[in-house]
Amino acid sequence: MKDMLDEFRVTDAPFWRQTSDEVELFTAAWDARIPVMLKGPTGCGKTRFVEHMAWRLGRPLVTVACNEDMTASDLVGRYLLDADGTRWQDGPLTFAARHGAICYLDEVVEARQDTTVAIHPLTDDRRVLPLEKKGELLQAHPDFLIVISYNPGYQSLMKDLKQSTKQRFAAMNFTWPEGETEAEILAHEAGIDSETAGKLVEIGARSRNLKGHGLDEGVSTRMLIHAGRLIKGGIAPRAACSMALVNSITDDPDMRDALDAAVATWF
Amino acid sequence: MKDMLDEFRVTDAPFWRQTSDEVELFTAAWDARIPVMLKGPTGCGKTRFVEHMAWRLGRPLVTVACNEDMTASDLVGRYLLDADGTRWQDGPLTFAARHGAICYLDEVVEARQDTTVAIHPLTDDRRVLPLEKKGELLQAHPDFLIVISYNPGYQSLMKDLKQSTKQRFAAMNFTWPEGETEAEILAHEAGIDSETAGKLVEIGARSRNLKGHGLDEGVSTRMLIHAGRLIKGGIAPRAACSMALVNSITDDPDMRDALDAAVATWF
Amino acid sequence: MKDMLDEFRVTDAPFWRQTSDEVELFTAAWDARIPVMLKGPTGCGKTRFVEHMAWRLGRPLVTVACNEDMTASDLVGRYLLDADGTRWQDGPLTFAARHGAICYLDEVVEARQDTTVAIHPLTDDRRVLPLEKKGELLQAHPDFLIVISYNPGYQSLMKDLKQSTKQRFAAMNFTWPEGETEAEILAHEAGIDSETAGKLVEIGARSRNLKGHGLDEGVSTRMLIHAGRLIKGGIAPRAACSMALVNSITDDPDMRDALDAAVATWF
Amino acid sequence: MKDMLDEFRVTDAPFWRQTSDEVELFTAAWDARIPVMLKGPTGCGKTRFVEHMAWRLGRPLVTVACNEDMTASDLVGRYLLDADGTRWQDGPLTFAARHGAICYLDEVVEARQDTTVAIHPLTDDRRVLPLEKKGELLQAHPDFLIVISYNPGYQSLMKDLKQSTKQRFAAMNFTWPEGETEAEILAHEAGIDSETAGKLVEIGARSRNLKGHGLDEGVSTRMLIHAGRLIKGGIAPRAACSMALVNSITDDPDMRDALDAAVATWF
Amino acid sequence: MKDMLDEFRVTDAPFWRQTSDEVELFTAAWDARIPVMLKGPTGCGKTRFVEHMAWRLGRPLVTVACNEDMTASDLVGRYLLDADGTRWQDGPLTFAARHGAICYLDEVVEARQDTTVAIHPLTDDRRVLPLEKKGELLQAHPDFLIVISYNPGYQSLMKDLKQSTKQRFAAMNFTWPEGETEAEILAHEAGIDSETAGKLVEIGARSRNLKGHGLDEGVSTRMLIHAGRLIKGGIAPRAACSMALVNSITDDPDMRDALDAAVATWF
Amino acid sequence: MKDMLDEFRVTDAPFWRQTSDEVELFTAAWDARIPVMLKGPTGCGKTRFVEHMAWRLGRPLVTVACNEDMTASDLVGRYLLDADGTRWQDGPLTFAARHGAICYLDEVVEARQDTTVAIHPLTDDRRVLPLEKKGELLQAHPDFLIVISYNPGYQSLMKDLKQSTKQRFAAMNFTWPEGETEAEILAHEAGIDSETAGKLVEIGARSRNLKGHGLDEGVSTRMLIHAGRLIKGGIAPRAACSMALVNSITDDPDMRDALDAAVATWF
Repeated sequence: MKDMLDEFRVTDAPFWRQTSDEVELFTAAWDARIPVMLKGPTGCGKTRFVEHMAWRLGRPLVTVACNEDMTASDLVGRYLLDADGTRWQDGPLTFAARHGAICYLDEVVEARQDTTVAIHPLTDDRRVLPLEKKGELLQAHPDFLIVISYNPGYQSLMKDLKQSTKQRFAAMNFTWPEGETEAEILAHEAGIDSETAGKLVEIGARSRNLKGHGLDEGVSTRMLIHAGRLIKGGIAPRAACSMALVNSITDDPDMRDALDAAVATWF
Repeated sequence: MKDMLDEFRVTDAPFWRQTSDEVELFTAAWDARIPVMLKGPTGCGKTRFVEHMAWRLGRPLVTVACNEDMTASDLVGRYLLDADGTRWQDGPLTFAARHGAICYLDEVVEARQDTTVAIHPLTDDRRVLPLEKKGELLQAHPDFLIVISYNPGYQSLMKDLKQSTKQRFAAMNFTWPEGETEAEILAHEAGIDSETAGKLVEIGARSRNLKGHGLDEGVSTRMLIHAGRLIKGGIAPRAACSMALVNSITDDPDMRDALDAAVATWF
Repeated sequence: MKDMLDEFRVTDAPFWRQTSDEVELFTAAWDARIPVMLKGPTGCGKTRFVEHMAWRLGRPLVTVACNEDMTASDLVGRYLLDADGTRWQDGPLTFAARHGAICYLDEVVEARQDTTVAIHPLTDDRRVLPLEKKGELLQAHPDFLIVISYNPGYQSLMKDLKQSTKQRFAAMNFTWPEGETEAEILAHEAGIDSETAGKLVEIGARSRNLKGHGLDEGVSTRMLIHAGRLIKGGIAPRAACSMALVNSITDDPDMRDALDAAVATWF
Repeated sequence: MKDMLDEFRVTDAPFWRQTSDEVELFTAAWDARIPVMLKGPTGCGKTRFVEHMAWRLGRPLVTVACNEDMTASDLVGRYLLDADGTRWQDGPLTFAARHGAICYLDEVVEARQDTTVAIHPLTDDRRVLPLEKKGELLQAHPDFLIVISYNPGYQSLMKDLKQSTKQRFAAMNFTWPEGETEAEILAHEAGIDSETAGKLVEIGARSRNLKGHGLDEGVSTRMLIHAGRLIKGGIAPRAACSMALVNSITDDPDMRDALDAAVATWF
Repeated sequence: MKDMLDEFRVTDAPFWRQTSDEVELFTAAWDARIPVMLKGPTGCGKTRFVEHMAWRLGRPLVTVACNEDMTASDLVGRYLLDADGTRWQDGPLTFAARHGAICYLDEVVEARQDTTVAIHPLTDDRRVLPLEKKGELLQAHPDFLIVISYNPGYQSLMKDLKQSTKQRFAAMNFTWPEGETEAEILAHEAGIDSETAGKLVEIGARSRNLKGHGLDEGVSTRMLIHAGRLIKGGIAPRAACSMALVNSITDDPDMRDALDAAVATWF
Repeated sequence: MKDMLDEFRVTDAPFWRQTSDEVELFTAAWDARIPVMLKGPTGCGKTRFVEHMAWRLGRPLVTVACNEDMTASDLVGRYLLDADGTRWQDGPLTFAARHGAICYLDEVVEARQDTTVAIHPLTDDRRVLPLEKKGELLQAHPDFLIVISYNPGYQSLMKDLKQSTKQRFAAMNFTWPEGETEAEILAHEAGIDSETAGKLVEIGARSRNLKGHGLDEGVSTRMLIHAGRLIKGGIAPRAACSMALVNSITDDPDMRDALDAAVATWF
């Protein structure tokens, strides 16, 4: 089991450019074992940040991409049928609680309510997890912490966290990195020169202004990295931007023209 | 089995500051074995109170966080496949009824109807639990009691307890602790001085006035404790309040400004 | 199996105060083996009556609290996996039909249609139960009888018994016991003096007039017994009524005031 | 297996008073092996008729009460887990097709579509039943016949037989037996004198005129038999009619008064 | 397995009266292994035609009556539990693809989308079937062909084939056989003289004019054969037509009168 | 396992006529291991293109036809019951990730959200796949790549990819091949002369202009190949076009006339 825990250790420092006091805040929450909620748009670096913090705090990281068909059993565990009858297998949440990992529930708002309610007892003062099917009351490891991510832009009447869930977390707001920081990230991740990186950042900023005016979301840092890598791979910048930024973000011909025009301004 | 019962004993006295006659009322209901319903907003101390009473009455406490995907079998029990065929495993409700624990169904209104109907025979005079799948008619232990919690603010047409369920319970209303009591709780739980605690209580009270005017719920005692702990951990009070109170309770920029202003009044 | 049947015998005479010819009617239906439907509001004594009749007729009683997630298999039976392969286990309906018990389906309108349709062949002249999964055509025991309960106030377009189900039953209407009878029941069940019992009955009657004017249901006899027991346990009458009658029946502040005022008139 | 077939034989001649050419028509359909659909209101004798014909033709009768949760597997069969692995078990339809019984699907419109579609190949010229899970193409026994019942009054947009199903059946219309015939049936089934029987028939006829004017269905012959049996058992005629006819057919006070008045005209 | 394939061979030539070039078109599609879609109203002979073609081409025919509860696993196959663990069992589609049968999906529009999507790879140029659960990529037998039937009159917004499914098939339109052809079929199938057959054909034609004016579908050839067989069996023509044509196609009294009048014109 | 990988190798070069820089773009994305989304109407060659690229890059290709009933387990894998207990079996996505194949999710928008979310971690920088049920964190093979296809014309409010999914892919737009290219494809695939091929291309173009004016989609290249093959097989061109193009694309008589007229212009 120890070995399996190692699989979840973050061995290489994930690149992180601090923009505010986010590292201090997360560390203080960690010290007080207060569950943390990371809020912000898709692709702005929430996942990267929690990986960075897991590496910095030296804790294994168990990541779960939530979805609407995930059940509480997927999270908590279940009995498997074995040659010797049934055998209990911890789900990722139980595994993390038992061995003291950080458990990161990505896009938790996508999960069904039974999944989110299952974490309530672990965020109470007693920090327990009742494994009802197993008849065990698991006391969480002292180093266990729950972190969830949440994109406020997606929340709707049907899909929102319950107040009784939200109130269990301290929350940190994330947004796109500012111009220079994002250029630095692009240059580092795509291996391009800082001039090209700067142009891509400008295109990204332009697209983010179109959010709510025909685009559901602006271009993410991740997409800018894709464009950078295609350019690095020898593709002409306009074609690279079409493929990595424009075509993947919209099917609307008008929006596509608007974005292509923005690309043409810089390349 | 005895050992497992011990897992559910509340060994350390949970901190409770009595505000009215709630201890006497609960004790009288317990003496007459009348099922109890705790009503009140999220995070006001219902769970803490039942833990306190379980400790005070010396009874083990089996807590079940209800959710809409929980089935009656999750509560009552099921057959598991074993090396020697199937083996019955009591669910938490059956376990509590058999061994004389207090069974606390937290946020029972979230559960599916089959879950709530399953408790009816245990709240009748005969106090039995028909384990239909096992063919057993379980007579509840004399010390067994059902307690449920219920947040009237959440009830809707789709999700409300049936009258035939409600009428089986005596009900106690809970609300936020009054100023001084809450400050005392904050100081005790977060380890902060009473002046800081008092300021946090004021911020909490201010937020609760915003309920129904842009906030679904006011800031809970639990959230104030989080803020206190972050302050205790060295975070500046304003940043601590942002993280623990403001960001986690609302995504609305206007409400955030209003709450930040309330924080700035005191820190 | 004989032993298990004994579990379902009603050994102590359940207290019943006859108000009309209900005992004779039920006995005649029993003699002619005509299935019986008990109609009336929640908590008015339908369950108590069927227990009383089972005791009076000397038949075991198998009670099933119906709910919308109960399947026909829960009622009829299923195969369980055993060390020697699968083993058939009778459900409560089959158990009752095979051994000649009264099978009482409480709140049958809550059940899914497959559950209600499963009882059709047992209410035909041939009184058989096809156990399709087992390939058995069970001929009901001569002493078997089906009794169902039904609250007309709850019926809606979505949840009503099918005509083809209703027509298989002779129906008896129940309502709250009249003043003196109810006082007698309260005194007997809660162990209080008849003056206190009389006051509680008055409060109950007052609340029942509010049905349809802000209350979904009036206070049931069961709730009055709860209040009586709390008073007997030393709680002040007003607090006992608040806990047992007012708080559990409504969340509406105005209705609460109205009911509290009714309580204050008598205590 | 032979023995089990005997369980499904109708040994005692079910009482049937022919009202038209129904016996000849059914016999001709049987001779030509044309599937038959019996149409008519609930409780008018469709089930009784098919039992009578099964007895007259000397064929075993397998009756299936259809419901909306019945699956095609419930009808066709499934694998059961056994000590030696899985074992196939014929469902009632397959059992009847294999051994040459009449298979009667009662209230087929309640079944899910997969159930009704499963019978299509058996009503084609080739009269086969593909047991897809077993990999067997079962050729129906020469004496096999499918009979279904269907209440046109219930059909709705959501629940109606598909045209491609209906067209596979020859259909016979049933309705309430005419006055004298019904009186004869009542006298025979309830053991009452013909005068009382006649009065009950009049009450039934009166109620059937109320269909569509406050009643969903009129009183069925079955209900009149219930009333007759209660009278035979010593219950006063008015009380017997209240219990067997009025209370079970309606919850509406006005309709109840109207029906009680009809009863009072004759008793 | 060879033996089981034989079960699916069409040994007796199904009667087919060619009305146009349908045999040549199907044969050409078969030669080019282009999947075929048969379109037309219920009971007009689509199933009969595919049986005829299977016999003519000497290929086994695997017919699947589609329904909305059929899963892709029902079509493709599944693991069964055996004494020696799990054993894979081909579904009808896989069986046909592996052994070179014609697989006929009757009323494919009734099936769930996963069922129709499962056939896509078999209708691509590569003619493969990925058995994902088995980890096998099955290359279809050279003689395998998919044929589907489809009734355009039933298609609705909810139930229609996806464009990406339709485009994989060449389609043939079917309708009722013309007068003389249908009479010939009736005489052959019901064993009646050609005069009676001619009259039935006239009645059928009259009913088909009522389609859309009170009838969902006209009387099918199959129903006319039923009527013919009842007449052949000694039933008076009017009674036979009532039973086989009128009662089974409509519950509406006016339509019934109109159809009865049409019958009376000829008999 | 190596052998099974070979099953998925594309051994014969799939015919592909390059129309733009699509091969270079895909190759660059492959070099940078950026997931690719192929956008375009049904039957325009997306599947053919990915087969061509897999062959060109020498990578095995695992194709999954997505559908709304496919679960994440169908993609990721599951435990199978074996003689020696349970045995894990990789799903197609896991198989491809483990052994370095291209995994092509065809019509991914049809899949349930849990299926699409399951691919998120594989499209992150860490390129891992958490096999939660197995307790394994699979590091993708360096040669693994995800490709998805997507038809923008089908997307609706209910069925669209989430922004957080879209942003993980670089996207390429596909449309029908231009006239001469398509004629070349037809001649090659159907074995017809270039004049006939040219006429079919004209008919295709005409039909595509009707998209949105009565047709949901225009005639695809695949359908033109069908028509060509039927002509090659000796069917008269008009009959071949009726069967392969007209009847399969529309049930509307007016549209059928319009298309038949288009056919008559050229043949």
